[in-house]
Amino acid sequence: MDSMTIIAVVSIITAGLTIAIGVIGPSLGEGKAVATALSSLAQQPDASATITRTLFVGLAMIESTAIYCFVVSMILLFANPFWNYGIAQAAGQ
Amino acid sequence: MDSMTIIAVVSIITAGLTIAIGVIGPSLGEGKAVATALSSLAQQPDASATITRTLFVGLAMIESTAIYCFVVSMILLFANPFWNYGIAQAAGQ
Amino acid sequence: MDSMTIIAVVSIITAGLTIAIGVIGPSLGEGKAVATALSSLAQQPDASATITRTLFVGLAMIESTAIYCFVVSMILLFANPFWNYGIAQAAGQ
Amino acid sequence: MDSMTIIAVVSIITAGLTIAIGVIGPSLGEGKAVATALSSLAQQPDASATITRTLFVGLAMIESTAIYCFVVSMILLFANPFWNYGIAQAAGQ
Amino acid sequence: MDSMTIIAVVSIITAGLTIAIGVIGPSLGEGKAVATALSSLAQQPDASATITRTLFVGLAMIESTAIYCFVVSMILLFANPFWNYGIAQAAGQ
Amino acid sequence: MDSMTIIAVVSIITAGLTIAIGVIGPSLGEGKAVATALSSLAQQPDASATITRTLFVGLAMIESTAIYCFVVSMILLFANPFWNYGIAQAAGQ
Amino acid sequence: MDSMTIIAVVSIITAGLTIAIGVIGPSLGEGKAVATALSSLAQQPDASATITRTLFVGLAMIESTAIYCFVVSMILLFANPFWNYGIAQAAGQ
Amino acid sequence: MDSMTIIAVVSIITAGLTIAIGVIGPSLGEGKAVATALSSLAQQPDASATITRTLFVGLAMIESTAIYCFVVSMILLFANPFWNYGIAQAAGQ
Amino acid sequence: MDSMTIIAVVSIITAGLTIAIGVIGPSLGEGKAVATALSSLAQQPDASATITRTLFVGLAMIESTAIYCFVVSMILLFANPFWNYGIAQAAGQ
Amino acid sequence: MDSMTIIAVVSIITAGLTIAIGVIGPSLGEGKAVATALSSLAQQPDASATITRTLFVGLAMIESTAIYCFVVSMILLFANPFWNYGIAQAAGQ
Amino acid sequence: MDSMTIIAVVSIITAGLTIAIGVIGPSLGEGKAVATALSSLAQQPDASATITRTLFVGLAMIESTAIYCFVVSMILLFANPFWNYGIAQAAGQ
Amino acid sequence: MDSMTIIAVVSIITAGLTIAIGVIGPSLGEGKAVATALSSLAQQPDASATITRTLFVGLAMIESTAIYCFVVSMILLFANPFWNYGIAQAAGQ
Amino acid sequence: MDSMTIIAVVSIITAGLTIAIGVIGPSLGEGKAVATALSSLAQQPDASATITRTLFVGLAMIESTAIYCFVVSMILLFANPFWNYGIAQAAGQ
Amino acid sequence: MDSMTIIAVVSIITAGLTIAIGVIGPSLGEGKAVATALSSLAQQPDASATITRTLFVGLAMIESTAIYCFVVSMILLFANPFWNYGIAQAAGQ
Repeated sequence: MDSMTIIAVVSIITAGLTIAIGVIGPSLGEGKAVATALSSLAQQPDASATITRTLFVGLAMIESTAIYCFVVSMILLFANPFWNYGIAQAAGQ
Repeated sequence: MDSMTIIAVVSIITAGLTIAIGVIGPSLGEGKAVATALSSLAQQPDASATITRTLFVGLAMIESTAIYCFVVSMILLFANPFWNYGIAQAAGQ
Repeated sequence: MDSMTIIAVVSIITAGLTIAIGVIGPSLGEGKAVATALSSLAQQPDASATITRTLFVGLAMIESTAIYCFVVSMILLFANPFWNYGIAQAAGQ
Repeated sequence: MDSMTIIAVVSIITAGLTIAIGVIGPSLGEGKAVATALSSLAQQPDASATITRTLFVGLAMIESTAIYCFVVSMILLFANPFWNYGIAQAAGQ
Repeated sequence: MDSMTIIAVVSIITAGLTIAIGVIGPSLGEGKAVATALSSLAQQPDASATITRTLFVGLAMIESTAIYCFVVSMILLFANPFWNYGIAQAAGQ
Repeated sequence: MDSMTIIAVVSIITAGLTIAIGVIGPSLGEGKAVATALSSLAQQPDASATITRTLFVGLAMIESTAIYCFVVSMILLFANPFWNYGIAQAAGQ
Repeated sequence: MDSMTIIAVVSIITAGLTIAIGVIGPSLGEGKAVATALSSLAQQPDASATITRTLFVGLAMIESTAIYCFVVSMILLFANPFWNYGIAQAAGQ
Repeated sequence: MDSMTIIAVVSIITAGLTIAIGVIGPSLGEGKAVATALSSLAQQPDASATITRTLFVGLAMIESTAIYCFVVSMILLFANPFWNYGIAQAAGQ
Repeated sequence: MDSMTIIAVVSIITAGLTIAIGVIGPSLGEGKAVATALSSLAQQPDASATITRTLFVGLAMIESTAIYCFVVSMILLFANPFWNYGIAQAAGQ
Repeated sequence: MDSMTIIAVVSIITAGLTIAIGVIGPSLGEGKAVATALSSLAQQPDASATITRTLFVGLAMIESTAIYCFVVSMILLFANPFWNYGIAQAAGQ
Repeated sequence: MDSMTIIAVVSIITAGLTIAIGVIGPSLGEGKAVATALSSLAQQPDASATITRTLFVGLAMIESTAIYCFVVSMILLFANPFWNYGIAQAAGQ
Repeated sequence: MDSMTIIAVVSIITAGLTIAIGVIGPSLGEGKAVATALSSLAQQPDASATITRTLFVGLAMIESTAIYCFVVSMILLFANPFWNYGIAQAAGQ
Repeated sequence: MDSMTIIAVVSIITAGLTIAIGVIGPSLGEGKAVATALSSLAQQPDASATITRTLFVGLAMIESTAIYCFVVSMILLFANPFWNYGIAQAAGQ
Repeated sequence: MDSMTIIAVVSIITAGLTIAIGVIGPSLGEGKAVATALSSLAQQPDASATITRTLFVGLAMIESTAIYCFVVSMILLFANPFWNYGIAQAAGQ
C-alpha cells in the first residue's frame, strides 16, 4: 500500500495548499473592489444602480479565479484520477 | 499502522495551515472594505442604507473565500476520504 | 508509542502555528477598521451611531476568521480525531 | 509501479500549485481594474457605456492568463501525455 | 524517555514561536489604532469621549487575538494534554 | 525506464511552474494598464478612440510575454525535444 | 544527560528568538503611536492633556504584547516546567 | 545515458524558469509604461503622435529584455551546445 | 565535554541573533519618533517643552523593548542557567 | 565524462538564471524611465526634443546593464573557458 | 581540539552577522531622523538650536542600539566566556 | 582533476550570479535618476544644460557600481587566480 | 590542518557577508539624508550653512555604523583571535 | 590539496557575493540622491553651485560604502591571508 499512501499524502497537502494560497489573491482583489464601490457610492449616490451592477459582475469574475482553485482542490480530494487508477489497479490484482 | 500515521500527520498539518494561511487574505480584504465603508458613511451619511447593504453583500462574498478554506480544513479533519479508505482497508483485512 | 508521539508532536506544532499565523491578518484588518472608525468619528461626530454600529458588525465579521483558526487550534489540542483513534487503537489492543 | 507513482505525485502537486499561484496575479489585476472602473463611473456617469465595455474587454484579457493556468492544470490531471505514455507502456508489456 | 523529550522540545519551540509571531499583528494593529485616535483627538477635541470609548473597545478586540496566542502558548507550557497523557502513561507502566 | 521518468517528472513540474510564475507579471501589468485606461476615459471621454486603440496595442504587447511562457509550457508537454530523443533511443534499442 | 541537553538547547534558542521576534511589532507600533502623538501635539497644543493620557494608555496596551513575549522568554529560562520535570526525574533516579 | 539525462533535465528546468522569471520585469515595466501613456493621452490629447511614438520605441526596448530570456530559453531547448556535444560524443563512440 | 559545547555554541548564536534582530524594530521606531518630533518642532516651536518631554518618554518606552533583548542576550552569555547547571554537574561528578 | 557533465550542467543553469534575474532590474528601470518620459511629454510638449534625446541616452545606459548579463550568459554557453579547457584536456589525453 | 574549533567557528559567524544585521535598523532610522531634521531646518531656520539639540539626543539614542550589537560582537571575539572556559579547561587538563 | 572541476563550477556560478544580482540595484537607480531628469526637464526646460550634465555624472557614478560587479565577474572567468594556481600546480606535477 | 581550514573558511565567508550586508542600511540611509539635504537646499538656500553642517554630522554618524562592519570584517581577515590562537597552538606543538 | 581547494572555492563565492550584494544599497542610494538633485536643480536653478557640491560630497560618501565591499572582494581574490598562509605551509612542507 506504499504508493497509494504517497498519492494520498500528496493529494491532501496539495488540496489544502491550493485553496489556501489560491484565496489570497481573490479575497484581496474583492476587498479592493468592494472598498472602491463604497467610496464611489458615497461620492455619487445617484449612480448606485450602475455601480452595484458593475461591482457584482466584477466580483463574480474575481470569485471565478477562487472557484478554479476550489474545483481543483475538490477534484484532488474526491475525484482524483490517479487515486482512482491506483484503486482500480489494486482491485484488479 | 505506519501509512495511517503518515496520513494523519499530513492531514493535521494541512488542516491547520490551510485555515491559517487562508484567512490572511479575507481578513485583510474585509478590513479594507469595512474601513472604506466607515469613511464613506462619515462622508455621506445620507447614503447609509445603500452603503451598508453593499458592504454586507461584499463582506459575504469575501467571507466565502475564507469559508472555502474552513470547509477544506474540516473535511481533512472529520471526513477525510483517504483516511476513511485506509480505515476500511484495515477493517477489511 | 512511536506513531502516537509523532501525531502529538505534529498536533502541538500545528496548533501553535495555526493561531500564530492566523491572527496576523485579522489583527491588522481590525486595526485598520478601528483606525478608520476613529478618524470618521472625528470628521462626522453626528453619525457616530451608524459608524459604531457598522464598526462592530465589521469587527465581528473579521474576528470570525480569527476564531476559525482558534477553533481548529483547540480541536487539534483537545478533540483531535486522529489522536482519539490512536488512543482507541492502543486501548483495544 | 514505482515510476508511475512518481509521475502521479508530481502531476498532483504541479496541478495544484499551478492554479494556486497562477490566480494570484489575475485576481489582483482584476480587482484593480474593477476598482478603477467603479471610481471612474462615480466620477463620470455619462461615460458608463464606454467604461463598462472597456472593462469587460480588459477583464477578459486578464482572465485569459488565469485560464492558461487552469488549462495546464487540467491537462496535467486528465490528459497528461507522460502518464498516458506510461499507461501505454505498462499495457504493452 | 525519548518520546517525552521530543514532546517537551516541540512544546517549548511552539510556545515561544506562537507568542512571538502572534504579537506582530496585534501590536501593529493597535499602534495604528492608537495613532489614528491621537490624530483624531487633535482634530476634533470635542468628540474625545466617543473617540476614546470606541478606541478602548477596538483595542480590546485586537488585544483578544494576541490573547488567543498567549492562551495557546500557556496551554502548551502548563496544561499540555499530550504531555499529561505521556506522564500518565509513564506513571501507569 | 528510469531516465525517461525523470525527464517526464521534470517536464511536468517545469511546465506548471513556468505558466504559473509567468502570468503573475503580465496579469498585474494588464490590470494596471486597464485601470489607467478606465480612469483616463472618465477624465477625457472625447479621446476614447485613441485611448482604447493604444490600450489594445499595449495589452497585446504585455500579453505576448505571457504567451512566451505558455509556448514554452506547451513545448515541454507536447513537443519536448529531450523526451522525443529518449523515445527514439528506446525505440531504436 | 542527552535529553536534558536537548531541552536546554531548545530553551535557549526559543527564549532568544521569542523576545527578538516579539519586540519587532510592539516597537514599530509604539514608534508610530509616539510619532502621531507628537504631530498631534504640534497641531493642537491645547489638547495635550487628553493626547498624552490616551498615548500612555495606548503605549501600555502595546507594551503588554511585548511583555507577553518577555514573560514566556523568562519562563523558558528560569521556570521551565519541562526542565524542572527532567531535573526531578534525574534526581529521583 | 546518465549524464545525457542530467543535461536534459537541467535544460528543461532552466528553459522554463528563465522565461518564467524573465517576463516578470518586462511585463510590469510595460504595464507601467502603457498606463502612463494612457493617462498622458487623456491629459494632453494633442500630443498623441509624439506620445505613442515614444511609447512604442520604449515598449520595444523593454520587450527586448524579455526576448533575451526567450532566446536563451529556445537555445537551451533546441540548440543546446552541451547537449549537441554529448550527442556527438555518444555517436562517435 | 560534548553537551557543554553544544550549549555554548547555541548560547553564542542565540545571544548574537537576539540582539541583532531585536534592535531592528526599536531603531526604526525611534527613528520615526525622532523624525516626527523634529518636524513637529519646526511646525510649532512654541510647544517644544511638551514635545520633547513626550518624545523622551516615548523613546524610553521603545528603548525598553531593545533592552529586553539586550538583557536576554547578556543572561545567555554571562548568567546562563543551563550552562551553570552543566558546570555544577561536571564539578559534582 | 563526469566532470565535463557537471561543468555543462552548471553552465546551463547559470546562463539561464543570469539573464532571467539580470533583466528584472533593467526592465523595471526602463519602464519607469519611459513612463516618466511620457508624462513629461504630456506636460511640456515643447521640450520633446530634449526629453526624447535624454530618454534614449538613459535607456541605452540602463540597457547596458542588461547586456552585461546577456554577454556573460552567452560566454557561458558558447565561449566557456572552463569547458574549453576540459575539452582540450580530454582531447590531449 | 574539536569542540574549541566549533566554538571559534560559531563565534566568528555570530560576531559578523550580529553587527551586519544589527546596523540595518539603526542606519535606516538615523537616515530618516537626519533627513527630517534637514527638511525641518529648511522650513523653520529660526528653531535650529532646538532642532539640532533634539536631533543629537535622538541620534545618540538610536546609535545606542547599534552599539549594543557592536558590544556583543566584540565580546564574542575578544572576551568570549565560553571560549575562555574552554581554554581554562584545556590548560587545566 | 576533481578539485579543478570544483573551482571551475564555483567560478561559473559566481560569475553569473555576481553580474545578475549586481545589476539590479544600478539599473533601478539609473531608472529613477533618468525618470527624475525627464520630469525636471519638463518642469524647467531652461536648466537643461545643468540637468543633463549632472545626470550624466550621476549615471556614471551609479554605473560604476555595476562595473565593479562586471569586473569581478570577468576576473572570475578569465583571470581567476585560484584557477591559474591550480593549472600551474597541475603543469608542475 | 583540518580545524584551521574550517576557521579560515568561516572567516572568509563572514568577512565578506558582514561588509556586504552591513552597507545596505548605511548606504540607503545616507542616500535618504543627502536627498533631503538637496531638496532642503533648493527650498531654503539661505540656510545652506546650517543644513550642510547638520548633514555632515549626520552622515558621519550613519557612516559610523558601516565602519563598525568594516572593522569587524578587517579583524576577521587580519587580526582574527581564534586564528592566531590556532597558529600559536600549531607552532607550540 | 583538499583544504586549499576549499579555501579557493569559498574565496571565489564570497568575493562575488560581497560585491554583488554590496552594490545594491549604494546604487539605490545614489540613484535617490541624484534624482533629488535633479529635481532640486529644476526647482531652484540659482542654487546649482551649492547643490552640485553637496551632491558630489554625498555621492562620494555613499560610494565609499561600495568601495569597502570592492576592497574586501579584491583582498579575497588577490591578497587572501588564509590562502597565502596555506601556500606558505605547502611550500614549507
